[in-house]
Amino acid sequence: MKLCRFGAPGAEKPGLVDADGKIRDLSAHVADIGPDVLSPESLAKLAAIEPGSLPVVDGNPRYGSCVTGTRQFVAIGLNYADHAAESNLPIPEEPVVFQKWVSCIQGPNDPVTIPKDSKKTDWEVELGIVIGTRASYVSESDALDYVAGYCVINDVSERHWQTERGATWDKGKGFPTFGPIGPWMVTADEVGDPQQLSMWLDVNGKRVQDGSTSTMIFGVAEIVSYLSQFMTLEPGDIITTGTPPGVGLGQKPEPWYLKAGDVVELGIEKLGRQRQDFVAWQPA
Amino acid sequence: MKLCRFGAPGAEKPGLVDADGKIRDLSAHVADIGPDVLSPESLAKLAAIEPGSLPVVDGNPRYGSCVTGTRQFVAIGLNYADHAAESNLPIPEEPVVFQKWVSCIQGPNDPVTIPKDSKKTDWEVELGIVIGTRASYVSESDALDYVAGYCVINDVSERHWQTERGATWDKGKGFPTFGPIGPWMVTADEVGDPQQLSMWLDVNGKRVQDGSTSTMIFGVAEIVSYLSQFMTLEPGDIITTGTPPGVGLGQKPEPWYLKAGDVVELGIEKLGRQRQDFVAWQPA
Repeated sequence: MKLCRFGAPGAEKPGLVDADGKIRDLSAHVADIGPDVLSPESLAKLAAIEPGSLPVVDGNPRYGSCVTGTRQFVAIGLNYADHAAESNLPIPEEPVVFQKWVSCIQGPNDPVTIPKDSKKTDWEVELGIVIGTRASYVSESDALDYVAGYCVINDVSERHWQTERGATWDKGKGFPTFGPIGPWMVTADEVGDPQQLSMWLDVNGKRVQDGSTSTMIFGVAEIVSYLSQFMTLEPGDIITTGTPPGVGLGQKPEPWYLKAGDVVELGIEKLGRQRQDFVAWQPA
Repeated sequence: MKLCRFGAPGAEKPGLVDADGKIRDLSAHVADIGPDVLSPESLAKLAAIEPGSLPVVDGNPRYGSCVTGTRQFVAIGLNYADHAAESNLPIPEEPVVFQKWVSCIQGPNDPVTIPKDSKKTDWEVELGIVIGTRASYVSESDALDYVAGYCVINDVSERHWQTERGATWDKGKGFPTFGPIGPWMVTADEVGDPQQLSMWLDVNGKRVQDGSTSTMIFGVAEIVSYLSQFMTLEPGDIITTGTPPGVGLGQKPEPWYLKAGDVVELGIEKLGRQRQDFVAWQPA
């Protein structure tokens, strides 16, 4: 099952994407795709609805982030060995954890703002995990039971802010618009093995990232179990799981950072694709 | 004006603490003390209410976190020169920024859980800033206009997780119960200069922290302005601003960490006090 949120920012409605790729309106069944509809029981109720009974949404609406009410946007760093190498950093012995501010979350195809004075805005295609059930101290063998589904995330990053402004990475990860999420949350049953998904990212039509979740250092089950030792994961929380090689800072012969006018497209097998115009910051 | 939330966890009501220290029920005027009541306009409406007209709350109710709906719990590290020294770390050239998971937020006097297998659970009395107005790229001279008020925070920390488990501090800062906030949010007008507040913390009756916000490296206005370059601060967001010397890891002749049965009391001038029993982790 593919769940989405469609419509104007702040006024999104819940939708289901049918087998033909049409959005169908779920408003008669749930108010939104938020924490309360992500439990196994709630998802089973939605799955029992005959898609053909739902109204087709006309036109080509905007997608919002595929889940609303996200309170914790957790991120794993350096989770692909080749990406650690291109970043000139050792392979981590345990997951590197940081956070993206939830105020950076936006729709998958909304424009991304290059911050004022930014010189190192970069891209990262990543597999997103959507938590469906509250998780504290869960074992690796049980961990996937706490996952509602998966989605595409561009973990947009400002490298100078991330690594040259002191201490932690958080500064460079959460500028407004730096968190495109969606277009859909695909439920875990439909995705199957999350460690067998190809993923890619193009900048201005040039393929720069071409990887697979099969080369993650720490897989989805290990990440969920690990995090649950340090925090409580809640329904609606999103974990972005790291990026394969090919980000801007790793380009040869020299790093390649984004500028206004650039177009980034990215996607993950079974999870859909995103497209973002990168634009200059403007005073509000 | 002192605003609070009182009652059982998850069922708190909004309250106002009057000049005699009595809690008065604000339920007839606002649903809760959340993002929508923190703007200057909303606070002015509450300030216009005659406290004597509000029902007195009988007994000695539990306090919840003084603000609900917090989506971003931002933290500044090493913000007192003497604390940086006791941590054997250099004085930062710009603010050190990390995050506490919002799922760790709790009432000021609720028990704090020592995580399973934790050996280095530590305390930190800190001045908390409550954001009242959305802030992006605000100047230092305007920054205090975006602050609704201030509160006491114990930035409970697991030092091994924070600094010996790789990469960022976030792992050691957000275990469930590690974010006691309150008892009150005192509005900015009543606090006056936030850089002239004495602060203290006792463990089992022994004074271990005895400082003042006057020795912060980066003051409140600078922190708010600085953060607003990297993220959007939203109403209800809370910034905890760093701790003065005297944490457990800095004790001589050797570090002193918390164990089940310990009692921590802390307070800040004008902002009230907290008291926490530290308890052993128990399976849910």
